[in-house]
Amino acid sequence: MNAAPSIQKLLDELERLPGVGPKSAQRIAYWILNTDKATAMRLSEAIAEVKETVRFCSRCFNYAEDELCEICASPKRDQAIICVVSEPRDIPPIERTAAFSGTYHVLGGALSPMEGIGPDDLHIAPLLSRLASEEVGEVLLATNPNVEGETTATYLARLIKPMGIKVTRLASGLPVGGDLEFADEVTLGRAIESRRTL
Amino acid sequence: MNAAPSIQKLLDELERLPGVGPKSAQRIAYWILNTDKATAMRLSEAIAEVKETVRFCSRCFNYAEDELCEICASPKRDQAIICVVSEPRDIPPIERTAAFSGTYHVLGGALSPMEGIGPDDLHIAPLLSRLASEEVGEVLLATNPNVEGETTATYLARLIKPMGIKVTRLASGLPVGGDLEFADEVTLGRAIESRRTL
Repeated sequence: MNAAPSIQKLLDELERLPGVGPKSAQRIAYWILNTDKATAMRLSEAIAEVKETVRFCSRCFNYAEDELCEICASPKRDQAIICVVSEPRDIPPIERTAAFSGTYHVLGGALSPMEGIGPDDLHIAPLLSRLASEEVGEVLLATNPNVEGETTATYLARLIKPMGIKVTRLASGLPVGGDLEFADEVTLGRAIESRRTL
Repeated sequence: MNAAPSIQKLLDELERLPGVGPKSAQRIAYWILNTDKATAMRLSEAIAEVKETVRFCSRCFNYAEDELCEICASPKRDQAIICVVSEPRDIPPIERTAAFSGTYHVLGGALSPMEGIGPDDLHIAPLLSRLASEEVGEVLLATNPNVEGETTATYLARLIKPMGIKVTRLASGLPVGGDLEFADEVTLGRAIESRRTL
């Protein structure tokens, strides 16, 4: 490539990012070279800062800067409903819907016998102690609608239901704005099974 | 969004990057949060390092860490042919072809009366003094095949030809592997005009 060593190093690091191939890495690297130093340094420092200051919320295992995350610390959130997700990255899409105002619990993954991930590898014990000590009326299981996510949801439902707590699961069905013609048979079958009365 | 302030700051900075929208920024931010600290710090430092160490080659205006860029400093490059490009980012695609072994000259833009960019705003004077002092047999004009690039190429050709130096331009025509059916009429017209004898 005949690039200066520091540019080559930047290209190598950028290519590790998800969704960034050699061409995007090059586009981003030249943008960084071309932009003013202050803008580039803000990016560099923002990366260093999250690694320095971000840890896990002691209650729900979301990313947090303090003992509790922004959501657990908010007095506006409904403490009676807990939404269980696999990863912290699953929280922003749910927040964007504005359809949920409760708190979260991040499992840190999903059950996967194939990859040797069992219940002890997830934050399930802390969830059960939250359910024992907090006044929780409903647990919404929002793990992914794939094999691991469904397995995890089924496992958790079996543990939590006997505690007398309502357990719910995200609905499966056709994406809003989607085309029936292009729906896969599993999704369409699920949409028929879960049909609503109008 | 209810994200921690340092995460929000990282998202804001990532969204400035070319080709990175809100969703890719979120994907990259969560990747950074999730990866080990050493990997994230290598990226952070690589960004800071290029802004610290990279400057312009004093001869060709490519990005360089030393007085001369890697290409100008290489004894393997043919000093008798100069490829003129608009921006440093135009060099890597030409290098990847392995079809060119000469040196480069970066103009730092292209002539654009619309945007008020005239000859004095580009590194044209240093190019002319290179042509006067170095032993150059050919100048390959590799500005973009758009209005500004063509204008710049025509302008430079008029200046350089009287110096008795061969001036060439990148060929226009059908992209290799492309479909004649989908070629735009300007490109196809140019391919007919520049047809080769077999």
